[in-house]
Amino acid sequence: MPTCEGAFFDYLREVDCSDVEVYSIPEGSVVFPKVPLMRVEGPVAVVQLLETPFVNLINYASLVTTNAARHRHVAGKSKVLLEFGLRRAQGPDGAISASKYCFMGGFDATSNVLAGNLFGIPLRGTHSHAFVSSYMSLDEIPDKALRSKDGSRVCQDFVSLVQEWLQKIQVADSLGGVFGYTNQSELAAFVSYALAFPSNFLALVDTYDVMRSGIPNFCAVALALHDLGYKASGIRLDSGDLAYLSIEARKVFRAVEKEFNLPGFAKMVITASNDLNEETIDALNKQGHEVDAFGIGTYLVTCYSQAALGCVFKLVEINSKPRIKLSEDVAKVSIPCKKRCFRLYGKEGYPLVDIMIRESEPSPKAGERILCRHPFIESKRAYVVPQHVEELLQCYWPGRSDKPRAELPSLDKIRSRCMQQLEKLRPDHIRRLNPTPYKVSVSAKLYDFIHCLWLNEAPVGELQ
Amino acid sequence: MPTCEGAFFDYLREVDCSDVEVYSIPEGSVVFPKVPLMRVEGPVAVVQLLETPFVNLINYASLVTTNAARHRHVAGKSKVLLEFGLRRAQGPDGAISASKYCFMGGFDATSNVLAGNLFGIPLRGTHSHAFVSSYMSLDEIPDKALRSKDGSRVCQDFVSLVQEWLQKIQVADSLGGVFGYTNQSELAAFVSYALAFPSNFLALVDTYDVMRSGIPNFCAVALALHDLGYKASGIRLDSGDLAYLSIEARKVFRAVEKEFNLPGFAKMVITASNDLNEETIDALNKQGHEVDAFGIGTYLVTCYSQAALGCVFKLVEINSKPRIKLSEDVAKVSIPCKKRCFRLYGKEGYPLVDIMIRESEPSPKAGERILCRHPFIESKRAYVVPQHVEELLQCYWPGRSDKPRAELPSLDKIRSRCMQQLEKLRPDHIRRLNPTPYKVSVSAKLYDFIHCLWLNEAPVGELQ
Repeated sequence: MPTCEGAFFDYLREVDCSDVEVYSIPEGSVVFPKVPLMRVEGPVAVVQLLETPFVNLINYASLVTTNAARHRHVAGKSKVLLEFGLRRAQGPDGAISASKYCFMGGFDATSNVLAGNLFGIPLRGTHSHAFVSSYMSLDEIPDKALRSKDGSRVCQDFVSLVQEWLQKIQVADSLGGVFGYTNQSELAAFVSYALAFPSNFLALVDTYDVMRSGIPNFCAVALALHDLGYKASGIRLDSGDLAYLSIEARKVFRAVEKEFNLPGFAKMVITASNDLNEETIDALNKQGHEVDAFGIGTYLVTCYSQAALGCVFKLVEINSKPRIKLSEDVAKVSIPCKKRCFRLYGKEGYPLVDIMIRESEPSPKAGERILCRHPFIESKRAYVVPQHVEELLQCYWPGRSDKPRAELPSLDKIRSRCMQQLEKLRPDHIRRLNPTPYKVSVSAKLYDFIHCLWLNEAPVGELQ
Repeated sequence: MPTCEGAFFDYLREVDCSDVEVYSIPEGSVVFPKVPLMRVEGPVAVVQLLETPFVNLINYASLVTTNAARHRHVAGKSKVLLEFGLRRAQGPDGAISASKYCFMGGFDATSNVLAGNLFGIPLRGTHSHAFVSSYMSLDEIPDKALRSKDGSRVCQDFVSLVQEWLQKIQVADSLGGVFGYTNQSELAAFVSYALAFPSNFLALVDTYDVMRSGIPNFCAVALALHDLGYKASGIRLDSGDLAYLSIEARKVFRAVEKEFNLPGFAKMVITASNDLNEETIDALNKQGHEVDAFGIGTYLVTCYSQAALGCVFKLVEINSKPRIKLSEDVAKVSIPCKKRCFRLYGKEGYPLVDIMIRESEPSPKAGERILCRHPFIESKRAYVVPQHVEELLQCYWPGRSDKPRAELPSLDKIRSRCMQQLEKLRPDHIRRLNPTPYKVSVSAKLYDFIHCLWLNEAPVGELQ
């Protein structure tokens, strides 16, 4: 039995958004609970159809960007952060979103080639364990010749050159006795990789045994490349005790630098991966490590520390009448009215408080005192004299109106905005342990309005 | 500087999968760690290109299906389970995957209309809070007429009929004094919804106050619908104490049934939503509740109890030579060789153990004793005489070969398989607390082979 009249489909066919206006806080901004990320105005039926797509598109994007920014915060500015989440995201498109928004939140590169192609995100990756184990021996390398970087000469047997270096390493006193027999499949894979990408030699060293096989095999190939004018990129560790292994690997690189007089070899990049997250990076920082770059996947894209962001869509005004949604849970009570939102900055350049006002109220002004009230708790309020005032909601879709449309910046610009906004925050708001809550307020007029409406709408009952 | 030769792109242009064969455990099967979900054979370069897409497509799908099955397990067979995850999934396509695989894992319906359209999954949903708060008063309803279900008569003023019922409820002794003034915006929204969908009236009753407004408003509309031969569907609770509210709502429905002599009114469907998950449903079951249907979103699609499944792709054989990936973590050591996998069933019809054998070995046979060994622990082994043997990996992509291709069943069939497979498991394997681990084994021949290869590949060192 049809539960829908045919005329509804005719209506849907004609629906467009020319009567809708969309306001949004610029992408890449730091935002706080209760302040609306978007304001959508228009015919209620059309706007209602936009609810689900908007909430779907905003929730995960905001969440994973925040998660990326948190990882950047704990890793520090000097580390390279690589997004490796493609395999653990919700299908191909979930992964594309993850790559885009992790870059926005402060990651440096992704291993997702399509995301690199679509958004211009730098691509970074290493070879796989399967690549290493696909080789059996050095005999499988058909073309052993490698031209020097400057093109001046050709080494006809790069394999033998590597083997010579491996022997030198094995007998070197300063590296004394650490290395015995190394895995020859692994060595063949490294040599093959170096022949294909002599300028980008980055080896995954944990397929068999990091310290006994991966590191000496890597050093032998790196030294042979050096003979031909190339500089190896570094190693990746994907299992085991990353603090210990990175420190031990660094010791070997320092010893090789000294033994063979190769300035810079000690600075070889050490990349770590394997179920990293905020907590493990924090723990690595506390115990000391020699990792230069972190490859982070699962915990980043699945947002381990909070798997979903609870952004919702609320009707706050209809036909110029404000609406409120009450709830058994106070946290779910919405703030009514079409609102304008401002961030007030103090003398030191830090944001002090966000304030929401009714649309009819005058904007807060720099140098003018304004009362900021907690939306629900009567006793929480403070006068603020802002040094600088920033209006948060900008018009991105003016519909038929002649309002100016805010520019949609490039991904790089959004990323820079995100980094800058985070740097502008007072450090105690973003420290890991017990951060000071940032204050979100309403004007005195909006406060009175909310509470008047609340009393009007809530049925009066008796406590029993 | 290009790091890639042009010939590689020519190669990519020519790549196809006609030399590849893909074997897989049928979709909807119960699977256990260490048993390969798929076996991919073919030229290493081509197969390597398939790694990331396969792992991306399988990981989340398997995870969310499992999560859905776990929710079904805790909710029990008699409850209706609705997937409401669209807003919290990783973008639109993440949500489509979630809807498809949650249905496969035992959910009954989704609120995702596109998923319903694409896969034929039953659609179920209710109206939003914004719909309720978009109404101000009963005056906003332009057309108050409603034709009776059998078409025999038209009630010209359905609004007045509802108001009459509301008054009767309010003065009824058996419902005594519970209800005072109810929210008129909410009542207007309910009436409007009932006029549009008289046969599918399902009201969200927590916009203002469940017991004082939502429930009496719902009952008044349901009773008025009943006068015209319609049967209301029920209510949805989206906040507050769901155990308490569902029990109280049921009491009212029972009292209404008795007061107005309406058999069946007490059985009104109560749907609950609001951040439900396995734990909260388990807690509701323990404390007692009257919920008939659960709408589950966030915790279902984000897989709260385990946010990612760690399926990986391992090279196990190349040019007929078995390969092994060792690792600093024993759990990451792969099981080498091209393998065939079997599930052995006991007399009572339960699966006893999965066993992996080398391809060259004879298949296990019903009634024949076979030694099943733990892949890594020498002392763990047992003889098994299976009553029935099921080969797990089927050929789904024969490439150029003439192997028969297994059928790709419909989503409904896959869902039934999933349900049946779960019912076939011994209950202690799937109980919530301390489940007995299901055993996964290798043949004696494969065991010896693994350990021989392991010793060969691992460099010999000294403990220091």
